[in-house]
Amino acid sequence: MIRMQLHFELDYLVNDANASLLFNVQPACTALQRVEQERMEMTPGAAWHEREAPCRLNRLISVKAPAGRFHLTYQAAVTVQPLVEPTSALAEADVASLPHDVLGYLMPSRYCESDRLINFAEATFGEIPSGYARVLAVRDWVRRKLRYASSASTTRTSAVETLTDRVGVCRDYAHVMIALCRALSIPARYVTGTDFGADAGKPMDFHAYVEVWLGQRWYVFDPSGLGIPMGYLRIGTGRDAADVPYAMLFGDVISDYAPLVRVTAEQGPGLEMPRHVEEALSTM
Amino acid sequence: MIRMQLHFELDYLVNDANASLLFNVQPACTALQRVEQERMEMTPGAAWHEREAPCRLNRLISVKAPAGRFHLTYQAAVTVQPLVEPTSALAEADVASLPHDVLGYLMPSRYCESDRLINFAEATFGEIPSGYARVLAVRDWVRRKLRYASSASTTRTSAVETLTDRVGVCRDYAHVMIALCRALSIPARYVTGTDFGADAGKPMDFHAYVEVWLGQRWYVFDPSGLGIPMGYLRIGTGRDAADVPYAMLFGDVISDYAPLVRVTAEQGPGLEMPRHVEEALSTM
Amino acid sequence: MIRMQLHFELDYLVNDANASLLFNVQPACTALQRVEQERMEMTPGAAWHEREAPCRLNRLISVKAPAGRFHLTYQAAVTVQPLVEPTSALAEADVASLPHDVLGYLMPSRYCESDRLINFAEATFGEIPSGYARVLAVRDWVRRKLRYASSASTTRTSAVETLTDRVGVCRDYAHVMIALCRALSIPARYVTGTDFGADAGKPMDFHAYVEVWLGQRWYVFDPSGLGIPMGYLRIGTGRDAADVPYAMLFGDVISDYAPLVRVTAEQGPGLEMPRHVEEALSTM
Amino acid sequence: MIRMQLHFELDYLVNDANASLLFNVQPACTALQRVEQERMEMTPGAAWHEREAPCRLNRLISVKAPAGRFHLTYQAAVTVQPLVEPTSALAEADVASLPHDVLGYLMPSRYCESDRLINFAEATFGEIPSGYARVLAVRDWVRRKLRYASSASTTRTSAVETLTDRVGVCRDYAHVMIALCRALSIPARYVTGTDFGADAGKPMDFHAYVEVWLGQRWYVFDPSGLGIPMGYLRIGTGRDAADVPYAMLFGDVISDYAPLVRVTAEQGPGLEMPRHVEEALSTM
Repeated sequence: MIRMQLHFELDYLVNDANASLLFNVQPACTALQRVEQERMEMTPGAAWHEREAPCRLNRLISVKAPAGRFHLTYQAAVTVQPLVEPTSALAEADVASLPHDVLGYLMPSRYCESDRLINFAEATFGEIPSGYARVLAVRDWVRRKLRYASSASTTRTSAVETLTDRVGVCRDYAHVMIALCRALSIPARYVTGTDFGADAGKPMDFHAYVEVWLGQRWYVFDPSGLGIPMGYLRIGTGRDAADVPYAMLFGDVISDYAPLVRVTAEQGPGLEMPRHVEEALSTM
Repeated sequence: MIRMQLHFELDYLVNDANASLLFNVQPACTALQRVEQERMEMTPGAAWHEREAPCRLNRLISVKAPAGRFHLTYQAAVTVQPLVEPTSALAEADVASLPHDVLGYLMPSRYCESDRLINFAEATFGEIPSGYARVLAVRDWVRRKLRYASSASTTRTSAVETLTDRVGVCRDYAHVMIALCRALSIPARYVTGTDFGADAGKPMDFHAYVEVWLGQRWYVFDPSGLGIPMGYLRIGTGRDAADVPYAMLFGDVISDYAPLVRVTAEQGPGLEMPRHVEEALSTM
Repeated sequence: MIRMQLHFELDYLVNDANASLLFNVQPACTALQRVEQERMEMTPGAAWHEREAPCRLNRLISVKAPAGRFHLTYQAAVTVQPLVEPTSALAEADVASLPHDVLGYLMPSRYCESDRLINFAEATFGEIPSGYARVLAVRDWVRRKLRYASSASTTRTSAVETLTDRVGVCRDYAHVMIALCRALSIPARYVTGTDFGADAGKPMDFHAYVEVWLGQRWYVFDPSGLGIPMGYLRIGTGRDAADVPYAMLFGDVISDYAPLVRVTAEQGPGLEMPRHVEEALSTM
Repeated sequence: MIRMQLHFELDYLVNDANASLLFNVQPACTALQRVEQERMEMTPGAAWHEREAPCRLNRLISVKAPAGRFHLTYQAAVTVQPLVEPTSALAEADVASLPHDVLGYLMPSRYCESDRLINFAEATFGEIPSGYARVLAVRDWVRRKLRYASSASTTRTSAVETLTDRVGVCRDYAHVMIALCRALSIPARYVTGTDFGADAGKPMDFHAYVEVWLGQRWYVFDPSGLGIPMGYLRIGTGRDAADVPYAMLFGDVISDYAPLVRVTAEQGPGLEMPRHVEEALSTM
């Protein structure tokens, strides 16, 4: 079992007495991830309620904040019980028998236009034997073909554009991998979370990665290769970035600073440290 | 209460012993639409099962058909109890308090890139008083600005493209209206169904229209203006056409003919005929 | 020297007494291509004049045709003196010293968005030694990666779209090759002409191919691989298909049939037959 | 006659001994614009030559600069003899009789996809009587519908995208106006130059505006409405921004600062000051 301490701070400028903020930023609760303890504090005067209670896959908080600076501090202790499994048994599922809620992740979405990539995906990955190895080949292809650069894409950049431009951030890497998997009829989805294990000198940030449905489960893949996936805390789960913004702002509200994020893995009896694994990793 | 008789036939050419067909083509079951009786017949040898049973909002049938021509005949009797309500009380909902399953219909999707239309929607509809009248203004604008033409768009055409090209079919009209509503922070979604009341000489076909969340319900709008919405039978409900194809084909299967669709409204004691209404119409 | 007999017929339906037709459809005159004899006939009553006389690189005919069916027949004898040169000496030119009229073919154009393909071209072809061999590598890559299909693209499809969709016709093949060359800072342009040597059973049609600036000349490349480039007659030369439509229609005019095109190579003393060559081919 | 003093400075960082810089940044020479005197100075060691001499419509300078900071200073005195004409006589030209070099400005180009805007332009401006007034209506529409913002578009943004996003800079305003004119079969092109008369407190910059072919000439329009067109000095003239970048950088060269631009109108006997005019303005 892994136990993480999470702390983040968000800052906004609210210029409008009637503005609303909607956050999807707390760690999710799943069969394998448990929020042991958490504490949220906001600027005095903000009225908020957690809309999705009890804790589940996507947690939403609605906030009405007074005009002025808005500050949110969150702290939590979260345990993750990752599954680490041999990859050899993981087959691509027969689409005709996919569970209904998985089927939706086969469809093209706003930033993952898989319907336009069927020829390309077939030509590039069609010869690779079906199963975990093929998904890994897609992940490696994306990692190899894209260049990481933080100002070359925007929040409206889609997989087809990134495939053309060959440059982006973790969000874009995830969108391309998802679109290619779906174009191969493999369900794939977008996960937001916290980073872990990226270069020590660098400030932490929220992260985006991929889950792919193989056999009977969702398995984690990170095409960006930035961190150690076993140490990622899941926040939002959706089709692509459109589904799981960590903040939606209605009215005249602007982001004041980049979020401050800090995650540490606890050491102690019975606790393990996140590590890179060759096997398949699932946290759902 | 309205009672409709529905009959359709679908034809495919299956060239691949291992192909799968997945249909979302039967009428949905909702609080206001009830499938009284139905019968489905397929080419002998086809193995199929209804995946979503009992009947609900989106019904899926998985089929393994033998190589060769595949023919499906479906017949049903369906009752619809439409709600007809005064429009004056229908306010746009506060986004911060939308039900979670409605919130997803505020997000951009594959064919409805509302994130790119915020400036445009605000400039075009921002001055119109919020509420039912504004949604109606969007519907009328779409109907007025687009030209109906059947070969000017494809199944991959999106709302932004249609807004540029100003031409399309019911699918494109629906995508544009949905994208504009979402850009105004009004939840909107895509419904497939059967047409009713379109020009008598014309063969019937499947249809696509729009639902918008106002007050506490989903209300029906048809920007194409082709038929009489009260007589539409709901089949699929989703974010846009990507979610609710009436057929998904896996393997070497091709569509053989356009579907044959026939719908009639029954007359009889206690039954009403679909009619155009000025009021707000809901079938959910 | 090659000598070709060309015959084509064009058909339109003119529904508008005030319509204009503008053709760029006659063979060009260049240092290496000479129109020996030609005869054009049109529906009686059509008023036309050749706007670009004497004959030069792009020839334009303006026509005012009476309402009704419009028929144009053209017949010509054209000689081509192709240059066949060793490829080893053909270096990519230094961009800083390109002739001004060549420089324009380095810029992105409507259907060749080379500005978006710089990363991709660099990653895919950056390692290949500069010169003829690299251009050939681009041509072969395009030929290998695209699939020829006549209804998968439209007259508005661009190189970036074709690179995504991986399917198209000769026009699309040419656009992709041109865009990739320009992204590598190699001037490239679009040539329309007549096909020659494509599959004998197939009706002939107008064709599109590529010229690339190497050393001090334009060299012919045909990424589609459909015919024998030495036998192509040059009609239009431009940045991409936007520059050289063979017909521009103003007013209510519609194309009635696909053009009928017939080209044959004459045999006789002093005449050679078009043949495939490994060397570099220039007709300018 | 207007007489302007122009001074600008450009700064680059050259990281590559073999880099080339290509400038199209000096004022053009036309029948109505004359460069009386000019002086260019560069970082010592830079080897350059003016490629287009004598002075003409687009002037190109090739530079090989040594590695390190590169600085260019330019100073010139330029006279402009603007034509100011009544608008009532300015008819749209008959496309069939356009001069060949004007015809090219009717075609779609990289950033002006007029081929996609024909329905839209026809629906929006089709009813307006043809001629100068219609072009003015297009200019005013663009000015009214777009919002000026400097970071909402990039150098790769095209007219279709700006029409969707409804926001941009002078470059984007010009592209939209050009695309709409061409969609109406009115030749239009892109001019880069110096600004004049924009808000006094603001630093000057290079500018982009539009020329439209009416009657027998090119007339100036500035959809951005930022300055006083009579005081603009023409630098580059092309189909759109792709044709006339003021600098093209080959090799590892990066822009160091935004250009410093200073333009003043001289006062004196026989000299007039640039002023806003209601009449049609031509500088070609």
